[in-house]
Order: sequence, then structure tokens, then C-alpha cells
Amino acid sequence: MEAQEYMEMALALAARGIGWTSPNPAVGAVVVNNGQVVGRGWHKACGGPHAEVFAIDEAGDRAEGGDIYVTLEPCNHTGKTPPCTEKILNAGIRRVFIAMEDPNPVASGGIERLRSQGVEVTSGILWEKAEALNEGFIKHVQTGRPFVVAKSAATLDGRTAASTGHSQWITGESSRRHVHELRHAVDAIMVGIGTVKADNPSLTCRLESGGKDPVRIILDSRLTIDDQARVLQLNSDSDTIIVCGKIPADAEEPLRKKALLEAAGARVLEVPLKDNHVDLDRLMATLGKEKIQSILLEGGATLLKSALDAKIVDKFRIYIAPKLLTGGDGFPVTAGKGPLSMDEALTLSRVAVRHFDNDVMIEGYL
Amino acid sequence: MEAQEYMEMALALAARGIGWTSPNPAVGAVVVNNGQVVGRGWHKACGGPHAEVFAIDEAGDRAEGGDIYVTLEPCNHTGKTPPCTEKILNAGIRRVFIAMEDPNPVASGGIERLRSQGVEVTSGILWEKAEALNEGFIKHVQTGRPFVVAKSAATLDGRTAASTGHSQWITGESSRRHVHELRHAVDAIMVGIGTVKADNPSLTCRLESGGKDPVRIILDSRLTIDDQARVLQLNSDSDTIIVCGKIPADAEEPLRKKALLEAAGARVLEVPLKDNHVDLDRLMATLGKEKIQSILLEGGATLLKSALDAKIVDKFRIYIAPKLLTGGDGFPVTAGKGPLSMDEALTLSRVAVRHFDNDVMIEGYL
Repeated sequence: MEAQEYMEMALALAARGIGWTSPNPAVGAVVVNNGQVVGRGWHKACGGPHAEVFAIDEAGDRAEGGDIYVTLEPCNHTGKTPPCTEKILNAGIRRVFIAMEDPNPVASGGIERLRSQGVEVTSGILWEKAEALNEGFIKHVQTGRPFVVAKSAATLDGRTAASTGHSQWITGESSRRHVHELRHAVDAIMVGIGTVKADNPSLTCRLESGGKDPVRIILDSRLTIDDQARVLQLNSDSDTIIVCGKIPADAEEPLRKKALLEAAGARVLEVPLKDNHVDLDRLMATLGKEKIQSILLEGGATLLKSALDAKIVDKFRIYIAPKLLTGGDGFPVTAGKGPLSMDEALTLSRVAVRHFDNDVMIEGYL
Repeated sequence: MEAQEYMEMALALAARGIGWTSPNPAVGAVVVNNGQVVGRGWHKACGGPHAEVFAIDEAGDRAEGGDIYVTLEPCNHTGKTPPCTEKILNAGIRRVFIAMEDPNPVASGGIERLRSQGVEVTSGILWEKAEALNEGFIKHVQTGRPFVVAKSAATLDGRTAASTGHSQWITGESSRRHVHELRHAVDAIMVGIGTVKADNPSLTCRLESGGKDPVRIILDSRLTIDDQARVLQLNSDSDTIIVCGKIPADAEEPLRKKALLEAAGARVLEVPLKDNHVDLDRLMATLGKEKIQSILLEGGATLLKSALDAKIVDKFRIYIAPKLLTGGDGFPVTAGKGPLSMDEALTLSRVAVRHFDNDVMIEGYL
């Protein structure tokens, strides 16, 4: 097998940790000796051992003189666990193959350390795939802000719901399952109050294989959420955050509502408004400080438009069902005042297309 | 090679005739002897020899004792040319492989005739592909009405133009080239007067490889077209038909306008209105009688909605560009009053997806 194939194996291992490792990245590792895979590992949860530790422990004596393929530069610092560089050196591994270097200045320096001890290090193997696994982690380390994926689902004529708001279901089962995988993968899911009122969603991750509920963030600048909303009645390990504007100290009704929501277990986060809406730029800075590295923005059209205008969206993904709602009165994908010319449309880059039964998923970066 | 591979070859030859043979179907033929392809042919133009004739003539003596693969049942009647069954029998061909049987009762009977003379006939090889090549011909023979393909192009947020009507260009060059191939393939292209006023299109086929202009049909119930519209100034072999409501004998202004349009070389076709729009059902019957077998409906949103409601659309195709116009005020794919529930959306069947650079084409049958 070639280096790339071993790295593919390490990437597949890394992917098993997605959704469970935040704020750590998902990392996989494979130890190879004499052409034999002798150890496999992945980072399973923040605070637990790194991928290299599992792989080297599985390899045991057979790690000596061998190679390790790891999707992220081994850490060189003592955090919640000891440095992986030392684990590799102590195991007597001769060559280290890395997909991407660690963007986190605190943990980096691994390559240098290994080389200084005579280990041969090759970096950059399948780095694009490795980066795609940890987009949230990377952006957060580099900017302090969360990586935002906006997601929509529409008919071929661009409608996310009928004029009545009825939308269940546009897409097929396998598209919807994929959305739940995405919910599992991100730290938080964010929707506007309009979506809560129209669909009364629970915003949980429902995967047969099990999954993690993301933090639920509801933008509700004037705290108009119904206290019986499903999102406030959940039995979920993750928080529900209601984001509203700053509440003046003498505003009785909003303060009463805030207390009511808090009593129901939600957290109320006050953020300054901008043009009557929650200032998304400030909100991202705040959430980033709270170690929310990735957010799935699930609607609706008004929030998506605000988010695009505020330039907080990193990636856009849409599931298109082979249907025609017909009519101009259904709900649109984006709302509000658009540009006057098609030249001003936002063009996605690195476009990818996937099929989920008859639905087509198109995604790209902004 | 297997029968299917020879038939693929015959289908590829048939495809060369697309756009040139109407009202005849596009047909291809391959003569094989001793595992060698000895003759190839396709129907090039209505009135000219059929595919079998070209293939058998190319094969010459080598047709004797051989096989012929033909995408449509050989004709058994004397139309503009003598029956192909006799050509096959005279050439001494032993086996005939057919993709699909002739839906045209006038020309069919070929299989029976060949079998009665001791020729072995196999039918149904790649029949789905053969049918897809001649959808217009087949529907027209069976129903007397044209096959209608509705085509649109939109951003990921379902917009065909900015609020100003600006739309050039949503999709990339290679999508646009594909649309011109479609224009070449159909007998007629149809648009609403709104599209003519907004875009002032020429509605011609512009392919580097050459192509045929379809008949241009403009739905203009009240004859409001600008007599300087580009579509009236063309140097094109094909007709421009302006479809309007019945003009009363004493309606001076419409009659004057009609005369003006006719003087400019257009044809004015009067069709009864229904709900203030041209009655599309009646129009299809009329165009079918004029041997228009296939129509490309290119816009706009109002016409598409009317056509879908009138159930005249057989196939829908959309080119989706990886762009977000952003905003709810751009032009939609379909206009008018839609259904109240997503359950009432029209679901396409036999969905196909193709890629044109970064654009995704999705099509299916209604």
C-alpha cells in the first residue's frame, strides 16, 4: 500500500470522532510495520487519549522501527494528556507521515521535535481532506470565531415551504438523515425565531446510530418565543440558548420572560442589536469565546440573508428535491432585498455535489 | 462485441440526425458481418434515405448473411422513400436487431414482414435509450400533440434574475451551450411576452458546430410585442409565430398590429383565451396538427406556471448555478398562486443529473 492509502485509513478513523471531540479536532492514526497495519486509533473525546496513543498501544512492540500515519501533526505539549511526540519517540517509530500541520500554536512544534530526535517526518499527505474534517477547529484556532455552515432544502423552483409554511417533507429520508449527521458533527445549531414559530422544531440530532445534540441557538431579538415551544421542553444533554437584544434594567416584561425561560432551563444571551436584528458579527465573537467552533445555520430565509450579508457564513449547502412546488408565493431560500444585478450574486467555490436518492446536495464555500 | 454495444453505436449514429430529421425520427443503423462493422448510417433529413439504406449501401456485398442493428423498427411502407424492409431483404441480411418498435401505425409492420421472409428479428435492445432520442416523435405519433420540455436556469436560492430582471448570466458557458443543443434538437421554442420584453432575446440556435433554428413561438395574448423586438428582425430559416387571442373583426388596433407583424415576416396565430391567457391546451392541439412534435418552453415564470397547471409539460429541466443571489425580490422559477401544502408539489420521475462545469443540471418527467 502507498502512503496515501494509509492516510485514507487514518482519515476514516479520524471521522469516527467527529462530533465527539470538540473543542479538540478529530484525529486518526495508523501504525504500519513492514507493510502491515499493526495499530489503529482515533481521538474519541476531549480529555481522552489522542489518536496516536491508541494506535501505538495497539501496535505494542511492533511499533518499533515502524511508521505512523496521523491526520494532524502530533502535539508537542502537555494539555489534558502528555505530548504525543514523546509517545512516538518512546515507541521507537522511525517515520511519521502527517496530513496537516497543527494550526494551534499552543500544540504545534511536533514536527520540529520529532525531526530533532532523528525521526523522518513527511507532511501534507491528503491535507485537503484532513482540513475538511476539522473546518470548525481550524477556523476557530485561527480567528477565534466559529465556522458557519448554512443549510437549506428546496424544490427545483426554489421553495422551502408552501405559502402556508407547510414543508414536511421536501427532501427524502436519506437527505434528512444526512442533515442529522451534520447536526451531530457541529457544536451548535442556529435558527431564527420565525423557524421556531413556523415549524416548532426540536433541533436535536436523531440518528439511529446515536449522535450528539448540538447546542441550540435561537435568535429571538425581542424574546417572543412561546414558552411552550418544543425546543424548551427537551430532555437533551446540550444547552438551548435564546439570543436577544440587551434588556434594559427597567424593562419588566422582557425581564419576566427571561426569568421564565431560564427557569425552563434555557440560557438567555443578550447581544446588542444592529438594524433591529441580533448583531451576528458580535454574536459570532461571543460564541467563539465560548469555544463554539462550528455552527449549523438551519434557517429561515431571513436569517440566512442576514448571515450572508454579515459575511459570517463559511459554507453553504442545499438539498434540492426533484419537485416543483409551482407558484411564486411559497417560502424562498433567501429573503429580503437582493442585489440589482446577477453579477452581484455570491459565487461558491470548491463546489461539491452529492446524491441522496433522488435529491441532489450542492455545497460550496463563500 | 455484444449486441448492446452495436446498438450503442447505432444510437450514437442516430443522435447525429437529431434536429434535422423532424417530422421523421432520428434513426441509426450498423451492419455487422463476422464480427466486423461493415456499414454505418443514420437518417440525415426528412425526405432523404433512411439509416438502413446508408448502412447497407456502405456494406455493399458484405451485408449478405450479416446482421443489422437499427434503433427503430425498419419501415414497411413507401413514403418519400421505398420500404427499408425490402432493402434489408434484398441485401440478404439474416438477422435484424431493433431497439424500439415503430409507434407510427402507418410505417410499422416491418418486424412481421421481415419474419415472414425468414429473417430472425430481435427487438427491445436498449429501447429506453432509443425512446429518449425521439420523445417528440413518439408523443406526437401517439397523441397528435407536441412533447414539451420546460427549461429554466436558477441560482441555488431559486432565482432566475435579479429584481431588475438582470439575468446575464446565471449559468456558465457550457450550460448555455447545452441549451443551444436543445434548441437545435426541438421543432419549436416557446416563451411568454414578458421574457421578450425583459430580455429581448433572439431565440435562435447558436452552436459553433452549426445548428438549426427552431420555430419561435411567442405567447402574446394581447399583441403587445414591440415591433422592433429582436425576434422580429432575424435572418433565420425558421418562422416566428406570435400567438394571441381571437381578434374581433372590428378591432382596429389589434388588426393593424397584426398586419404590421405579418409585414415584418411573423405569423400571427389566433387562439381562444382561457382565464385571460392563451389556452395552452388548444394551442398544443393546433401546433401538433402543424407537425410541431417538440417544444422547448424557455420562460418565464408565469408561462411555466400556466403550462404546468395546464399539464402540457412532459419534462422539466433546470440548470442550477452554484450561486446565491440573496434576497426575496429576484425573479422566481415559477410564479402565481401555488398549492397550500408541500404534498401537492409535482414530483419528477426518472430524474437525471448532469454536470456542466460547476453548474448542475437536473431533469425529470412530469
